[in-house]
Amino acid sequence: MTIPSATVSRLVTYLRILEELELSEVRHTSSGDLAERAQVTAFQVRKDLTYVGRHGTRGKGYTVAVLKREIIRVLGLNQRWKVVIVGMGRLGHAIANFPVAAEYQFEYAGLFDVDPNVVGTSVGGLPIRHMSGLPKFVSEQGVDMAFLTVPPERAQAAAEQLVQAGIYSILNFAPIVLRPPAPQDEKEISKTREHHNVTVENVDFLAGMKRLAYYTRRPSGPEAEDI
Amino acid sequence: MTIPSATVSRLVTYLRILEELELSEVRHTSSGDLAERAQVTAFQVRKDLTYVGRHGTRGKGYTVAVLKREIIRVLGLNQRWKVVIVGMGRLGHAIANFPVAAEYQFEYAGLFDVDPNVVGTSVGGLPIRHMSGLPKFVSEQGVDMAFLTVPPERAQAAAEQLVQAGIYSILNFAPIVLRPPAPQDEKEISKTREHHNVTVENVDFLAGMKRLAYYTRRPSGPEAEDI
Repeated sequence: MTIPSATVSRLVTYLRILEELELSEVRHTSSGDLAERAQVTAFQVRKDLTYVGRHGTRGKGYTVAVLKREIIRVLGLNQRWKVVIVGMGRLGHAIANFPVAAEYQFEYAGLFDVDPNVVGTSVGGLPIRHMSGLPKFVSEQGVDMAFLTVPPERAQAAAEQLVQAGIYSILNFAPIVLRPPAPQDEKEISKTREHHNVTVENVDFLAGMKRLAYYTRRPSGPEAEDI
Repeated sequence: MTIPSATVSRLVTYLRILEELELSEVRHTSSGDLAERAQVTAFQVRKDLTYVGRHGTRGKGYTVAVLKREIIRVLGLNQRWKVVIVGMGRLGHAIANFPVAAEYQFEYAGLFDVDPNVVGTSVGGLPIRHMSGLPKFVSEQGVDMAFLTVPPERAQAAAEQLVQAGIYSILNFAPIVLRPPAPQDEKEISKTREHHNVTVENVDFLAGMKRLAYYTRRPSGPEAEDI
């Protein structure tokens, strides 16, 4: 059963909410509570949770730990994922060292770059390898996904190298829209997933920055001007 | 006029889509097209866009550049924002160097840390200052918001220092739920914005990682196991 992509996004949101509830030692929740926190309707929550086998009814609650485990399973987060990080500049280093990246059995299997000043050094015990060795590495090690942390102007070429090397799942940190290696029509290339079975998810920290601007805005700021 | 937070989030999404369309040299769009790309209904798009003064009607299109400019104005992204980055480890360095952070007139006014090995060095021409100087810096320079990039275990204390220093808008990169300095009841502290006028937006790159896992999942993977 394929879950609609909007539902996948909301399941990830519910999961984050459940983790927050667990941290706050809240043990039970409801579709109404989840709905309020996720800013959707309770009906939507109940409908989404049918995909994790929870045919919730109005007023019936959920055990936080159980629902969390079920969403983790449906999303495939209980599996081990082998990840390569491509682009070991400052952002790649930051991601490689990010403390929670090891949560959910995401395992950094390899680090790659093209810069001779960086290749051969190591981060967290892992050597940084040259991109030319990526195809061999993928076929020998069985890599599931790549975190793409190269500069924006190199992201498209790097993404094509990933696909050629046999990596079809890409978490793109560059603030650009990646195009699949062989785009078809204009409408298709502007979507973000399932081009020739290549999945790209984008990490957009700018979205949070933009929302924050709205809440910080000074309604009559004298320095307001068009850009 | 206050815009509902769910609408603010969607406006940010529409803005990203409009920027992508502009990159693809698409000049016109419609509520139906925006709806499909944003995974909401066309009715929702038209309703949201009334907040930017566009009373769209079914079938009527939008000029990409104009709608983009209107959303930018409503979100306050045409104003200049003075930002401090608090936590100059690898993540702080990465953010300070992130090429698009200067888009929309976000300006890094100051960098702060507590580590004596880091304080006094500089990044991109800006000196890293000690946190003890933050209140004076804020009152002299007029800081609008902080990007909080400290390790998770120090994020709560650092957020409290920010608020005490007079910074009420925080973009939190730590994978924890920040609690406002003086929480009231349990329900309120678990929401993410507008505690005592403090706004926290969270950057969750793990959300993209989790969605990616779903699309990468091996339905009958032999290594599937509970965690």
